[in-house]
Amino acid sequence: MTHFPKGFTSCSVNAGIKDDTLDFTIIYSDVRASAAAMFTKNQFCGAPIVVGKEHVADGYLQAIAVNSKNANVATGDKGLQDARTMTETVAAELGINSADVLPSSTGVIGVSLPIEKIVSAVPGLKGQLKADGLEQSAKAIMTTDTYPKFRTRTIGNITIAAMAKGSGMIEPNMATMLSYILTDAKIEAADLNKMLKKAVNVSFNSVSVDGDTSTSDTVAMLANGLAGDVDLVEFESVLTDLCIELAKEIARDGEGATKLIEVQVSGADSDAAAKKIGKSIINSPLVKTAIFGEDPNWGRIMSTIGNSEDAVDTTSVSVSFADVYVFKDGSPTEDKRAELEEYLKTDEVLIKISLGNGAGTATVWGCDLSYDYVKINGEYTT
Amino acid sequence: MTHFPKGFTSCSVNAGIKDDTLDFTIIYSDVRASAAAMFTKNQFCGAPIVVGKEHVADGYLQAIAVNSKNANVATGDKGLQDARTMTETVAAELGINSADVLPSSTGVIGVSLPIEKIVSAVPGLKGQLKADGLEQSAKAIMTTDTYPKFRTRTIGNITIAAMAKGSGMIEPNMATMLSYILTDAKIEAADLNKMLKKAVNVSFNSVSVDGDTSTSDTVAMLANGLAGDVDLVEFESVLTDLCIELAKEIARDGEGATKLIEVQVSGADSDAAAKKIGKSIINSPLVKTAIFGEDPNWGRIMSTIGNSEDAVDTTSVSVSFADVYVFKDGSPTEDKRAELEEYLKTDEVLIKISLGNGAGTATVWGCDLSYDYVKINGEYTT
Repeated sequence: MTHFPKGFTSCSVNAGIKDDTLDFTIIYSDVRASAAAMFTKNQFCGAPIVVGKEHVADGYLQAIAVNSKNANVATGDKGLQDARTMTETVAAELGINSADVLPSSTGVIGVSLPIEKIVSAVPGLKGQLKADGLEQSAKAIMTTDTYPKFRTRTIGNITIAAMAKGSGMIEPNMATMLSYILTDAKIEAADLNKMLKKAVNVSFNSVSVDGDTSTSDTVAMLANGLAGDVDLVEFESVLTDLCIELAKEIARDGEGATKLIEVQVSGADSDAAAKKIGKSIINSPLVKTAIFGEDPNWGRIMSTIGNSEDAVDTTSVSVSFADVYVFKDGSPTEDKRAELEEYLKTDEVLIKISLGNGAGTATVWGCDLSYDYVKINGEYTT
Repeated sequence: MTHFPKGFTSCSVNAGIKDDTLDFTIIYSDVRASAAAMFTKNQFCGAPIVVGKEHVADGYLQAIAVNSKNANVATGDKGLQDARTMTETVAAELGINSADVLPSSTGVIGVSLPIEKIVSAVPGLKGQLKADGLEQSAKAIMTTDTYPKFRTRTIGNITIAAMAKGSGMIEPNMATMLSYILTDAKIEAADLNKMLKKAVNVSFNSVSVDGDTSTSDTVAMLANGLAGDVDLVEFESVLTDLCIELAKEIARDGEGATKLIEVQVSGADSDAAAKKIGKSIINSPLVKTAIFGEDPNWGRIMSTIGNSEDAVDTTSVSVSFADVYVFKDGSPTEDKRAELEEYLKTDEVLIKISLGNGAGTATVWGCDLSYDYVKINGEYTT
């Protein structure tokens, strides 16, 4: 049976923003909760990001209001006003301060938000809030995702619930497209912040579907304290594990993806350098299409490593697909293409790269590039 | 009638490297020619690049030997030996010094070059050299290109002939995949070098098909002096124009491409900053797929601009497709999606971006991302 964190409820509806699927959700805490959030670094960030940063600044939130199907980005002054109206409408319905509401919007960029539809949909929602509504919230925030991403963990009597969405325009820089993490543990906002940053760095910030950092990336974490204290070391470990699991789900469900790709880089000068090389592999359209086609064209990995901005000692590089070595200590192995072709039939491809000269390591996740990615993105608004 | 530069001849054959198409060509100058060349900055550069750098170092070349269908990259010590064997075999046939032969190889990475096939194919080729063989050479160097790229220009009695190939793994950094420029003008190697660098920067180095810099990029220019002196200012202008024309052909014939995309950026802090933003637009899979699908999803341009590493004053940004403005001085225009959808039916899409705060400008070229790109690259070696 799924455990939900104490004192959190939610509900989801169709407000008619684009079609008749769930497109609006409210997540509510019975009491004000400690809060931390991380947002996109995209300079054309969405209007809700601007408002969200203001609202989380004091370290407290009590509700999250999210619409899908429209990102409210590049929408000028009206967009900013619409984001404020969304928080005010939800705050009025819940009887709380609008500065304790985090707004989020995800969907098409550059189209004005039909705010009147949201304003009409909100009255009466307070009565529909349910403790087991969170799984439906994970569904209501989806755009091109093919399934909701929702996970829970318990530590003693403490529960953490986390959801995420994101399938295209995914190379999070500070946070994924949208992710909300709720816990009934009692944790100060400053501690939440520290733990969230570390967890996001090795999870959401280590994923790329298409190298395009979204204008709407948000990860927000609320701790309402209703289940009491928790061991912070254990909490951080569980939180990190949870974020990695959701991040991998985002890569696995990347637009049009048929395979999850994990790249493990070791022997780099620094963790940052290792991550940069790993990201360049999962962002290479040549590598991604070869993996989609199950084509043992491993030379493309070498080319991508060679393009690294950092100096690479090419004589000490080794590359393997799981345990199939194609390049060892600077030289190609005997022709392994047949073995590699067999391996590539898997739906989870593991690429290990050893640069051989440093202590820096990183693991990143991505997905293949298929016909369906082209189809989904060639027809997105029409 | 096509004019060819005096004293240059060439021939092309099938050496059986992979299939029965033309895969080997020799370009020969009757006399030693002043020469300049630029090569890939990829650290896993091909064995022919290593040898080519050595051979052009003295500012002279007399022949170019190129095979397609195999890049001789990531092939270890044998690869380096094979590249030397190729130049020695060709030099012996032509009766010249092997240090005056530039070798090039293009095709799959990580597969050993079948050098014995090239060694068998060379004897007798000297007798087949023809002045009008250059157009066939442009064909023999093709891999996934769908047509040869060959252009000539005359300045008085001076002729310049230029060829290029490249369709995938194209984001040249210092040179395109392969390009050879031949002239009978008398120009010193130092002058050739200067002019070539400037021309390449605004042409081949301003093109991207897929953001992957190849391991084999080479542009080499030979001036054999047989037609005498030329005005260097006029020559540089014609050379630059010629390189831009070939660079655009490479983008237009990008793997799977259905549309040429030109991005003009102005108002940046520097030309380099403008080029970086332009490149990020033509490398965005979301922008590329939207253009393939003729989907007026211009918000993706805003998101890509917002991801610039350099600070952007978002309130002064304007974006238009040709003359259709979608965003002006920091705000969206009235909904232009219908007009934009109509415009996108063109096969040459022009995107103009004004950042509004500086004197830096750049023009870059790319292409859309289609189903065929995925098909070509999912099945490349199998």
